[in-house]
Amino acid sequence: MSYFPRLAETFSELLASVANDRVFVLGHARPDGDCVGAQIALARLLRGYGVDAVALNADPIPKALGFLLGETKIEPLVAPALDGRPLLFVDCADERRVGPKSSQLIADCNFLASIDHHISNTRFARMNLIEPSTAATCEIIAGLAFDFGLAVDATTAQALLTGIMTDTGRFGYAATSARVFELCSRLVQCGARPEVSAQPLYENQPFSRLKLLQRFLGALRTEFDGKLGVGTVARQDFVDTASCYEETEGFVDFTRSIEGVVIGLYLEERRTTVKASLRAVDSSYRVDLIAKQFGGGGHAAAAAFSFEGSIAEVESPLITAIGNRIQEVEAESA
Amino acid sequence: MSYFPRLAETFSELLASVANDRVFVLGHARPDGDCVGAQIALARLLRGYGVDAVALNADPIPKALGFLLGETKIEPLVAPALDGRPLLFVDCADERRVGPKSSQLIADCNFLASIDHHISNTRFARMNLIEPSTAATCEIIAGLAFDFGLAVDATTAQALLTGIMTDTGRFGYAATSARVFELCSRLVQCGARPEVSAQPLYENQPFSRLKLLQRFLGALRTEFDGKLGVGTVARQDFVDTASCYEETEGFVDFTRSIEGVVIGLYLEERRTTVKASLRAVDSSYRVDLIAKQFGGGGHAAAAAFSFEGSIAEVESPLITAIGNRIQEVEAESA
Repeated sequence: MSYFPRLAETFSELLASVANDRVFVLGHARPDGDCVGAQIALARLLRGYGVDAVALNADPIPKALGFLLGETKIEPLVAPALDGRPLLFVDCADERRVGPKSSQLIADCNFLASIDHHISNTRFARMNLIEPSTAATCEIIAGLAFDFGLAVDATTAQALLTGIMTDTGRFGYAATSARVFELCSRLVQCGARPEVSAQPLYENQPFSRLKLLQRFLGALRTEFDGKLGVGTVARQDFVDTASCYEETEGFVDFTRSIEGVVIGLYLEERRTTVKASLRAVDSSYRVDLIAKQFGGGGHAAAAAFSFEGSIAEVESPLITAIGNRIQEVEAESA
Repeated sequence: MSYFPRLAETFSELLASVANDRVFVLGHARPDGDCVGAQIALARLLRGYGVDAVALNADPIPKALGFLLGETKIEPLVAPALDGRPLLFVDCADERRVGPKSSQLIADCNFLASIDHHISNTRFARMNLIEPSTAATCEIIAGLAFDFGLAVDATTAQALLTGIMTDTGRFGYAATSARVFELCSRLVQCGARPEVSAQPLYENQPFSRLKLLQRFLGALRTEFDGKLGVGTVARQDFVDTASCYEETEGFVDFTRSIEGVVIGLYLEERRTTVKASLRAVDSSYRVDLIAKQFGGGGHAAAAAFSFEGSIAEVESPLITAIGNRIQEVEAESA
């Protein structure tokens, strides 16, 4: 039985081309569980195959994901270290996702391969292992590892399970297929333990995060007859609660979880930029197209973009664009 | 391949003894996802086998689980309707779990069988299908259904997946085994859809609940150098946010999730009583013994009690008792 027969030929070529070589495994900036899990797992799988694979990321790994970093380090992404070696991208819809500065540094490098589950992936690498039907990049890597009989040890299995757990919203999103559950069954057999991922991710939070959450909930509101949920965190909220950016993980889910809401919008005001995240109750809303209008992208039901400026500047045009989209979808389904 | 070979003979006898009969499937009072899922699934599986099975429960089904109630009703448990027919218990550690009044009503009935995963199960029925290694009663029923080739349609599969999802804490507790994931893979193949359970349970909340959560987080504090997390909801909070008791589901988990906290305490002020819930990071804290001092009980890491009066009356002696227990545990482990 094969999980990803369509990708077999390309993955086979990839393995052949990197054998006994030195390669770098790159993930996107501000890495999440699927990105960190995929970087660690792919680096370890390749090392087990005789490849000198090193994982690199422009940003630090969130504290809550620190449990994944044992003997497998993720080094800072700095160009001089790359030394002309092939780059393998995971969970990156395009090469710019590695970070604004980093993408310039790697511009002339060898984009050997890309493994990703984003529908918006631009096929920017020489070998593209893209499977939008999957819930997570870690699902693709797990399936390929089993398809090719690569050595999946407990650490690798834990990394893959973590990516799947986070990108399926704890096995609750529609993309959580029979294949997802079957792969997780095999990952547990390989030594992964669900509680090892779930405890640091979902059952251990700084007090400052709860204070920030309280602020956020206080400002939560709806627009368009309760169809759009809007949540914001302003610069001052971080200061007043002594919390940091990574503590807002999951806030966007509250905006969409309100009864009656079809699109949730979360705006986070950082030092000079606003991070905007969009979530829809189903893929018909194509929030990736809304994000695209503002220079971002993502999935049909989950997208994001960054804006240079303040919440006050971006909020109004963005809410107008979302309102238009809600009207369009209602008109289409009427 | 067999999931529960140890239970095969008893389940086979059970099926033979109820064939073409009329039976009742009972669950515990204040039913949760595993109980409701198990009642619906077992009733449907037996009906598919030619048994006239009817599910009964002393309490109403929580609104968030209403999506499971389609053509399969769960009727109110009232004794006259029982008519001397055999009773099958699911998810009940003992027969009193069906509710204080109901357990008297069924005292002289035929306790034919019990399917349960609680280690504390008293083996009170004639046939006991007890498997404490499982994460959920729905896991046992799913495994037996597949082992015996019973017809698992989409509705039955959805009920079983829901019970497993809720009792594994969204696939995050240590009991989430390779078997759990494999069974869920098969349930999805039978037509269960994870998002159909996860959305009403975790991604759809009244706006009033978020306003109540905001109040709760505003009052959240720690005691004993950050080792005890204390959260409260006062009578007035329910009034001011127009929310109801059911909407505080999960609040206790916030008290325990704070970094550094070893015991979480949640106090909810109802009309004339206070509902106190205790959660510990591990079972060494024996919070059931603390609850027992106030007339309650539970598990070593999760316990509760009811107090006639106000938060102001119970809070101080309770916090003192918890402080003493934290000191004891620290002394024991020193």
